[in-house]
Amino acid sequence: PLCLCCALGPAAASAAATNILLLLMDDMGWGDLGAFGEPSKETPNLDQMAAEGMLFLDFYTANPLCSPSRAALLTGRLPVRNGFYTTNGHARNAYTPQDIVGGIPDSELLLPELLKKAGYTNKIIGKWHLGHRPQFHPLRHGFDEWFGSPNCHFGPYDNRERPNIPVYRDWEMVGRYYEDFKIDLKTGEANLTQLYLQEALDFISKQQASQQPFFLYWAIDATHAPVYASKQFLGTSQRGLYGDAVREIDDSVGKILKHLQQLGISENTFVFFTSDNGAALISAPKQGGSNGPFLCGKQTTFEGGMREPAIAWWPGHIPAGRVSHQLGSVMDLFSTSLSLAGLQPPSDRQIDGIDLLPVILQGKLIDRPIFYYRGNELMAVRAGLYKAHYWTWSNSLEEHSKGIDFCPGQSVAGVTTHTQEEHTCLPLLFHLGRDPGEKYPLSFASEEYQQAVEHISGLVQQHKATLVPGQPQLNVCDQAVMNWSPPGCEKLGKCLKAPESDPQKCSWPH
Amino acid sequence: PLCLCCALGPAAASAAATNILLLLMDDMGWGDLGAFGEPSKETPNLDQMAAEGMLFLDFYTANPLCSPSRAALLTGRLPVRNGFYTTNGHARNAYTPQDIVGGIPDSELLLPELLKKAGYTNKIIGKWHLGHRPQFHPLRHGFDEWFGSPNCHFGPYDNRERPNIPVYRDWEMVGRYYEDFKIDLKTGEANLTQLYLQEALDFISKQQASQQPFFLYWAIDATHAPVYASKQFLGTSQRGLYGDAVREIDDSVGKILKHLQQLGISENTFVFFTSDNGAALISAPKQGGSNGPFLCGKQTTFEGGMREPAIAWWPGHIPAGRVSHQLGSVMDLFSTSLSLAGLQPPSDRQIDGIDLLPVILQGKLIDRPIFYYRGNELMAVRAGLYKAHYWTWSNSLEEHSKGIDFCPGQSVAGVTTHTQEEHTCLPLLFHLGRDPGEKYPLSFASEEYQQAVEHISGLVQQHKATLVPGQPQLNVCDQAVMNWSPPGCEKLGKCLKAPESDPQKCSWPH
Repeated sequence: PLCLCCALGPAAASAAATNILLLLMDDMGWGDLGAFGEPSKETPNLDQMAAEGMLFLDFYTANPLCSPSRAALLTGRLPVRNGFYTTNGHARNAYTPQDIVGGIPDSELLLPELLKKAGYTNKIIGKWHLGHRPQFHPLRHGFDEWFGSPNCHFGPYDNRERPNIPVYRDWEMVGRYYEDFKIDLKTGEANLTQLYLQEALDFISKQQASQQPFFLYWAIDATHAPVYASKQFLGTSQRGLYGDAVREIDDSVGKILKHLQQLGISENTFVFFTSDNGAALISAPKQGGSNGPFLCGKQTTFEGGMREPAIAWWPGHIPAGRVSHQLGSVMDLFSTSLSLAGLQPPSDRQIDGIDLLPVILQGKLIDRPIFYYRGNELMAVRAGLYKAHYWTWSNSLEEHSKGIDFCPGQSVAGVTTHTQEEHTCLPLLFHLGRDPGEKYPLSFASEEYQQAVEHISGLVQQHKATLVPGQPQLNVCDQAVMNWSPPGCEKLGKCLKAPESDPQKCSWPH
Repeated sequence: PLCLCCALGPAAASAAATNILLLLMDDMGWGDLGAFGEPSKETPNLDQMAAEGMLFLDFYTANPLCSPSRAALLTGRLPVRNGFYTTNGHARNAYTPQDIVGGIPDSELLLPELLKKAGYTNKIIGKWHLGHRPQFHPLRHGFDEWFGSPNCHFGPYDNRERPNIPVYRDWEMVGRYYEDFKIDLKTGEANLTQLYLQEALDFISKQQASQQPFFLYWAIDATHAPVYASKQFLGTSQRGLYGDAVREIDDSVGKILKHLQQLGISENTFVFFTSDNGAALISAPKQGGSNGPFLCGKQTTFEGGMREPAIAWWPGHIPAGRVSHQLGSVMDLFSTSLSLAGLQPPSDRQIDGIDLLPVILQGKLIDRPIFYYRGNELMAVRAGLYKAHYWTWSNSLEEHSKGIDFCPGQSVAGVTTHTQEEHTCLPLLFHLGRDPGEKYPLSFASEEYQQAVEHISGLVQQHKATLVPGQPQLNVCDQAVMNWSPPGCEKLGKCLKAPESDPQKCSWPH
C-alpha cells in the first residue's frame, strides 16, 4: 500500500520528461470561445481541445492587467509579492510601458529557471512584458530562446518622441513593429500570429528530434488592441476583426496540437490554454472581446476582469470531456509545471500557486481562496461560491467622463463605482453560482451573509497577517529607458538616440 | 432528375409517421444551459442532446411573454395576426391572466388540429396559456389529451378574491395548485416536474404500443416563478433553487430521450427543445435564469428577452454535433412539424414560420428576418447580423421606481430607455456578431449603417404593407371569468361562486 500511494502520486505518474506548453492569450475574455458560450461559436479547434481535455470554468488571473498577470504566472506569486505593483497610487493598476524603469527582480525565481534543473529547454514566443532593460531580458531569467517583443505592439511611433517596439530573436533585436514587422492599422492585417505559429512548430520539431523535454511559453498578442489577423483570416468572422484574430488563433492552436500528435508526443506534452486578463471592453466590440455573462472587464476586479477561459489538454492522461469547478489561478501553472517536471517549488518564499495535477488527473477539488488585487490593494476575495468585495472601483469620474468605460452597458448601483469605495467593515457579498454577473448583493442582515463573510474575513486576516509585500517595481518611469537602442540595433542600423534621463513617478490613472 | 428532387425533398424524406416532441421551457434563458455557456455547466443531458443533434444559436421567440409566444408557436403566426396582443396600451405586453376574457380564436388553425389530418394523436402536458374559458379548452383546438393547467402556477389564492389555478386531466379539472398539487413556497418543493415526466413517458409508451404517430407538447413550468423542484433535486445546484429546477428538467429530458431510445423509436421521433421567452431577470437570481451575454430579459425586445436556447434532436437524421446560425423562430416549429407530417401549411392566411428541415437535415441557411413585437408595436427587426430598433423601451419610470427592473445591472444610454422612444426615422442599429450585448450602437454617419438600415427598412415596409392585424383578444378582463368552477369541479366539490360580471379594460403596465 505504501508503494501504491507513491507510484500513483501525480509527480511520479508524470515522468520528469513531460513537455510543457502554455498557450497564453492577451486580453481574451471568458466569453470568447464557443466552449464557453460565445454566441457565434467560431472556435472549433479550441472547443475540440476542451472536448478532449478538461475545461476550467472558475480559473483566474492574478491581476486584471498584463504585466503583473504574467509576472505572477512565471513566479507563482501574487504581484504584491513579486514586486509587480505600484505604491504611488492607491489600488491602481501598473504595468511595464516603454518608460518603466523596473522589471522582474533578480531575486524572483522564474519557472524556466527552475525547469532548467530538470533538463528542460525553455522558449518564449511572443510578449515578455516583465521589463525591457538589459537586466530583465528573458534569457537572463531562465529562457533559452526568445522570439517576440518586450512590450505590447502599440504604435506606430515616430522614433523621436518614442521608439517603435523592437522584436527580438534571442539576445538581440531583429527589427521593430510597424517597420520590419508590419501591422496595418487600417485593415488590421499583420502576419505575426503566423510567425509565432511557425516558431512554435519549429521549436517543437527541434526538441522532439533532440529528445529534450521543453517548456514553451506561447504568449501571443493578436487579441490585444490594436487587434490584427493575417490576410487569409480577415473578414472570416461574424465578429469582425477581433473575431478574425480569434479564428486565426483557434486555427493555430489546432495546428500546434495536431503537430504534437503527428510527432507522437501529444501524450508526453501537457498543454494549457488561458489568458492574461479579462477582455478589454473599452476596446470592444471592434478591438476587444467578450466576458460572457460577467461584470466589467480588464482593469477591474469584477469577474469580467479576472475570470479566464482555461483548458488543460494531455491525451492519455486527462480523461476527455471533463469540466472542473476548481478555483484555479495562472499562478497554479507555475506549481503544476514544477510538479510535471518532478521538481519541488521553492521553500524559501511564499508561493501562491497550487499543484493542479490532482484536480486534472484525479478530479479532486482543492479548497482555496482567490485573491483579487488591484495594484497594492486587496479588492475582493472568493471562497467557494461566495465573493466578498472589500473595495469597489471601476475607474475615476474624471476618466469615465473622457469616455473610458471598463463596464460599457453595465452599471450596478454601489458596485461599479467611479470612486474608490471601501467596504472593509461590511463587504459586498455575491453568490457567484446564483449570480455570476455580480448584480444582486446579498442582504447584510441575512444569515447567509453573516456566515459567508465570517469565513472569508478569516481568510483575509490570515492572508494579510502573513503578507510580506515585495519591493514595488512599477513606481518610476523615465523616457531614457525606452527601447531606443536594444542589443543588436547596431548590426541593423536601428539604434536611436535616447533623451536625457529624467526619472519621474509613473502616472497610473486606473 | 425530377424524381430525385422529390424523393430527397424534406417532406418525403421524413415519413408521415414521424413523431413530434416539443419540449417547451418557461422563462428559461439562452444562458441557462451548459452548451450555451452557463458558468456552472449543470445540464449534462441537454448538453448531450445538443452534442447528438443540432444547436441553434440564433433562435427566437415571437414575443417576450408567455401567452403570445405560445399562441405563435401553435399557430405559426405572429401574435399581431393571431390576436394575442392588446390595443389598449401602446407597445405593452399582454397575456392571459385569470381574469382575461379572450383566448385563442376559433378561426385560428392550431398545429394539433392540422396534425390530426395525418393521423396524429396530440397531447399537451403542462401549461396551455391560450385562454381558460370553455371555448378555449385545448381539446377544442386539436389536442386529444391534456394533463396540466390553463395558467401559471401563481398563488396560493384565497378562493374568495381569486381562485387557485385548476389542474386538468383532459376535459375536466382534477384539483388545484396549492391544494391538491402542492407547491411549498418556502422550500420551493413541488413534485410537478416528476408528474409531467411520468405523463410523458406513459404517453410515449402508449403511442408506441398503438403504433400511432404522436405530437407531444411538453410545456412544463418549473423555471417560472415561483420556481420549484422535487425534493431529491433541492439543494443540488450551485445556482440555488432556480438551478435545482433546471437540474430536474435536465434529468427529465435525459430520461425522455433515453425512453425513446429504449423503445426503439428515437430515429422516428423529432425532438425540439426551446423556451417561450427570455429569462425573467426581474426574478433573478433566486427565481430567474440567465440570458448569458445578452441585454435585458423577459418582457423586452432586446436579445435577452427573445433569443432562446434551442436544440433539435433526431438520431439517424440530424448529424451529431451540428451548430446552426439559422435565424429561427418558435413559429417555425409549426411549419416544420407540418412538413414532418407530410402536410402543407394553410394557404388561406399568412404563416410566419418557415420549414426548418432543409436547415436541420441539409445544413442550409435560409435568409429571413426576425420581427420583434411588443404588443401591437414592431419594436425591432433583425436581418443577418444587423438588428435595427425602431422603438426602445424597458419599462416605465413609474414601474422602475417601484423596483421592477427588466435589465438589472445593465443600462445602455439611449437604448434601455424608461420612456417609449421612437427611432423610426433613424433606427438604432447593432451588429450582433461584434456586439451580441447591444451595447455599441453603430454610428448613423457610417456607410455600414446606411446600407444595413436601407436593407432592413425595405423589409419593414414590405412587412407592414401586407400586415392584417387580427382581432385583439387581450383587451378585456373580468373577474367573473376566473377559474371559479371549471368543468369537473362538481365531482370534486371544488366549485366556487363567481362574482358578478364586470368587464374592464385590462391593465398592462409593461
